[in-house]
Amino acid sequence: MAYVNENYLKLKAGYLFPEIGRRVSVFCEENPEAAKRLIRCGIGDVTEALPLAVREAMKSAVDDLGNRDTFRGYGPEQGYSFLREAIAGDYRERGLNVADDEVFVSDGSKCDTGNILEIFGEGNTIAITDPVYPVYVDTNVMAGNTGDAREDGSYEGLVYLPCTAENDFVPAIPEEKVDIIYLCYPNNPTGTTATREQLAAWVDYANKNGSILLYDAAYEAFIQDDSVPRSIFEIEGARTCAIEFRSFSKNGGFTGVRCGFTIVPKELTAQTKDGKEVALHGLWNRRMSTKFNGASYPVQRGAEALYSEAGKAEVAALIEHYMGNAKILSDACKACGLTVYGGENAPYVWVGCPEGVGSWDAFDKFLNEANVVVTPGAGFGAAGEGYFRISSFNSRANVEEVAKRIAELKW
Amino acid sequence: MAYVNENYLKLKAGYLFPEIGRRVSVFCEENPEAAKRLIRCGIGDVTEALPLAVREAMKSAVDDLGNRDTFRGYGPEQGYSFLREAIAGDYRERGLNVADDEVFVSDGSKCDTGNILEIFGEGNTIAITDPVYPVYVDTNVMAGNTGDAREDGSYEGLVYLPCTAENDFVPAIPEEKVDIIYLCYPNNPTGTTATREQLAAWVDYANKNGSILLYDAAYEAFIQDDSVPRSIFEIEGARTCAIEFRSFSKNGGFTGVRCGFTIVPKELTAQTKDGKEVALHGLWNRRMSTKFNGASYPVQRGAEALYSEAGKAEVAALIEHYMGNAKILSDACKACGLTVYGGENAPYVWVGCPEGVGSWDAFDKFLNEANVVVTPGAGFGAAGEGYFRISSFNSRANVEEVAKRIAELKW
Repeated sequence: MAYVNENYLKLKAGYLFPEIGRRVSVFCEENPEAAKRLIRCGIGDVTEALPLAVREAMKSAVDDLGNRDTFRGYGPEQGYSFLREAIAGDYRERGLNVADDEVFVSDGSKCDTGNILEIFGEGNTIAITDPVYPVYVDTNVMAGNTGDAREDGSYEGLVYLPCTAENDFVPAIPEEKVDIIYLCYPNNPTGTTATREQLAAWVDYANKNGSILLYDAAYEAFIQDDSVPRSIFEIEGARTCAIEFRSFSKNGGFTGVRCGFTIVPKELTAQTKDGKEVALHGLWNRRMSTKFNGASYPVQRGAEALYSEAGKAEVAALIEHYMGNAKILSDACKACGLTVYGGENAPYVWVGCPEGVGSWDAFDKFLNEANVVVTPGAGFGAAGEGYFRISSFNSRANVEEVAKRIAELKW
Repeated sequence: MAYVNENYLKLKAGYLFPEIGRRVSVFCEENPEAAKRLIRCGIGDVTEALPLAVREAMKSAVDDLGNRDTFRGYGPEQGYSFLREAIAGDYRERGLNVADDEVFVSDGSKCDTGNILEIFGEGNTIAITDPVYPVYVDTNVMAGNTGDAREDGSYEGLVYLPCTAENDFVPAIPEEKVDIIYLCYPNNPTGTTATREQLAAWVDYANKNGSILLYDAAYEAFIQDDSVPRSIFEIEGARTCAIEFRSFSKNGGFTGVRCGFTIVPKELTAQTKDGKEVALHGLWNRRMSTKFNGASYPVQRGAEALYSEAGKAEVAALIEHYMGNAKILSDACKACGLTVYGGENAPYVWVGCPEGVGSWDAFDKFLNEANVVVTPGAGFGAAGEGYFRISSFNSRANVEEVAKRIAELKW
């Protein structure tokens, strides 16, 4: 008799975005006319064309495969050296000590942030910020790192670190000991950033307690303020306590192309139950070698092109476009008296709901009255209640239209 | 203090192919002249050009991404409907009952055969054939489904089902109860196939015992004999006990492009510890939704093209090429008195070592005397001792040269 992984049965039905999808579908069926003017600012999916440099590189790579002399079959599971070098070289240009073979190229950061749990054992206490990217939570539930779900959607056994306006959306260092901590800056969903000092406090905590920071920097390219750290490895001591996740989805428009990477420093260790230190680099290398077969060759060539002069210029233009959108959305919300966070170094605008309005109420109001899809803060965790997120991933025309409709909303 | 997954520490250092790589490197360093004539027939990696139909489809998909009106961002985690329909439609054309939404498209079968373990719980008894694709074993070790490694490289707690010439390389139905059974036909590494009756006996066993068959059909396109089943779903009753894995790596030359799929029938269930039946389709769907973000869009368009008339013709030509190679290699081995298995419905030729020659001895002899890389059978498991595998994935010229060198080998 084969047994299922019963941890899956603890999962609450609604991963946030399916529930949003369901509500939007119902609305569109019931309001076919309004559906025609629907604008989606919910899910953080890019909308603009893939850079030309990437497309040319991908097509040229496809041509390579059309000739047996330049054909490539199985690539290195860790990524081709041309891409690992480009990535690590970019870190080194910024003065950060990252070796080529500390870079593990994958088919995306969502996969990596989930799969990383495989190299950790039982008995770790997991801390997540609240609100949070739901994948961190759900993958821990699936891995058996939590207890059952509570009524409010949170899980027994997880340590939630509330991030609200009161603490500038950077969690306080916990008083209890936690073993693995997810941090994401610039933050999804709040669009806020952490200062060097705030991150240094976390690195210090982690090194003192033998904890691991899982640092998701998927949105680093959106940072406009030079004083904001772009990588956890800008913080002294991070190489002995942090893994960094990065993605080409949002800077290069790769959400459909699929490529990301993870940096695992060689000096980073965790422990066996009897106190032996084990390097996580070797474990992750083993995980990737055994359960992954490398990202697609044309995709890796496309990612490499993001580091070319032409590619960098195109990325800069994409970032400027989306950040211009963020400013328009942010200004529109401010103009009608809403309190706005984020949106300055991140593509997400995080908005406080007016007094007495819940975040799903705000979602429904936007959908029904403005025909705009936003994301209710509560969907990201209990501390997200009272906020909603507007994504700036859209065309300029759509964003200007959304701004107009925001101005017309009566709260 | 973060804890590691100590199951990883049970893994034997050598995944087979790295050890082969190491021996080949040493040989090439020590014998630079002989290294120039080295021919690799070890790892099962394709060598011929990617079909034109695939390349055109991929390039056209890249162009789609270059225009915001045809741009695609995040795709469905389960695969685009155009590809799921093409795949399921192909099954249905062969009279098999597979629904579009039972197809889960991924970035490759190696990933799927490893990741599938996530939906199964603790306490399952796992059976694998011996010899076997090492990934099945290693992923079970990593998941904690085994005990420690023994001296001979096998693991406590796994049930090994020997496949040798004596049982025609199809394992006997075990007398003990096992919960999850890996079957791979046409087989890697032996290149042999299972008859309808043999598979029916397994389906019958699985249905009676509530066991799950993990059926790897990565090599189905190489089947020449119409009486050999191409899918486990050709066997009555398989939909209540089997998951099928398929890959575009070997038929379409996708080893570097990365695409495969898994079929999970909706009526397939496993149990909770207290006896509740849970559909595996829902669990796998949840796993893929939460930990995967869909295969690359241009890659999925490339895979779709394999189902076009032009694509099918190109796949047929590739198969004919590799199977022609298999015949040449097989004939060469037979001509010098070696006993040969496989190679008729699979791209692998499985050769018995002459009396008194171990499989790593045969590997070293091929390397040193013929400058040909083969794979030692023992690397695939204890029952592979006394055999070696020759892969027919190569150019015709190389294969003809290998045949000549085989003829010159003195045993």
